[in-house]
Amino acid sequence: MLIKLESTFGSMNYKGTNERGQSLQLSGDQEAPSPMEAVLMAVAGCSSIDVELILKKMRQDLQKMEVSVQATRAEEAPKVFKTIEIHYILHGDIKEEKAKQAIELSMEKYCSVSLMLKATVDITYTFEIRPTTWHEGL
Amino acid sequence: MLIKLESTFGSMNYKGTNERGQSLQLSGDQEAPSPMEAVLMAVAGCSSIDVELILKKMRQDLQKMEVSVQATRAEEAPKVFKTIEIHYILHGDIKEEKAKQAIELSMEKYCSVSLMLKATVDITYTFEIRPTTWHEGL
Repeated sequence: MLIKLESTFGSMNYKGTNERGQSLQLSGDQEAPSPMEAVLMAVAGCSSIDVELILKKMRQDLQKMEVSVQATRAEEAPKVFKTIEIHYILHGDIKEEKAKQAIELSMEKYCSVSLMLKATVDITYTFEIRPTTWHEGL
Repeated sequence: MLIKLESTFGSMNYKGTNERGQSLQLSGDQEAPSPMEAVLMAVAGCSSIDVELILKKMRQDLQKMEVSVQATRAEEAPKVFKTIEIHYILHGDIKEEKAKQAIELSMEKYCSVSLMLKATVDITYTFEIRPTTWHEGL
């Protein structure tokens, strides 16, 4: 896996590009997500992929997923994450036990981003299920 | 620090948003950078911010920076990074010793993204300086 990042001095804006030519804008100056925010988004994205695939295999009716990730950082440099709290909101008719199992599998076994961070960061997670009703979206 | 991520079942596309409302697109299906690619971009971005700020304090003439990050991953799940090689290309009239010092300070002391990964990943780095000439850009 290879990425490249470019910057022009003074702009504090960075363009990262992957091997397929797709890019993300990052910023050191609040003009785009910061690198540390990108890491939190990667934690959420990585785990969402797992949870979606696992719930699909379990034939659960996941319609939509929202994940929020709240982190605290060290006060002195290096300002690493101290804690990361992940909250999953699963929309659909999903059995609680299946949701629990899918999220646990992601966080304990598959999600490479959070499993790398886990060595130094205290990561916790919670979830809720929001069943869809007949009238939703009408 | 808080981020939110949304997905619609089946799309494998994820939109992460920070507290300022700025977002990044991530994908589990090659339609945008993957979460693991985003982590590498965050490593490069985080360190670029440091190197830029440190070289500025050192009154070095950094015009532009390019960073490439190459990583290998575990073959079995969790497919965490095993090695990360970072290569910095610094454009401008920069003293080699200052460049070395700035990069070392970033990688050993300030860059929170790489310092979190360092606990489990073998991270190495190299750099080159490309002096600007009078005629460049004409």
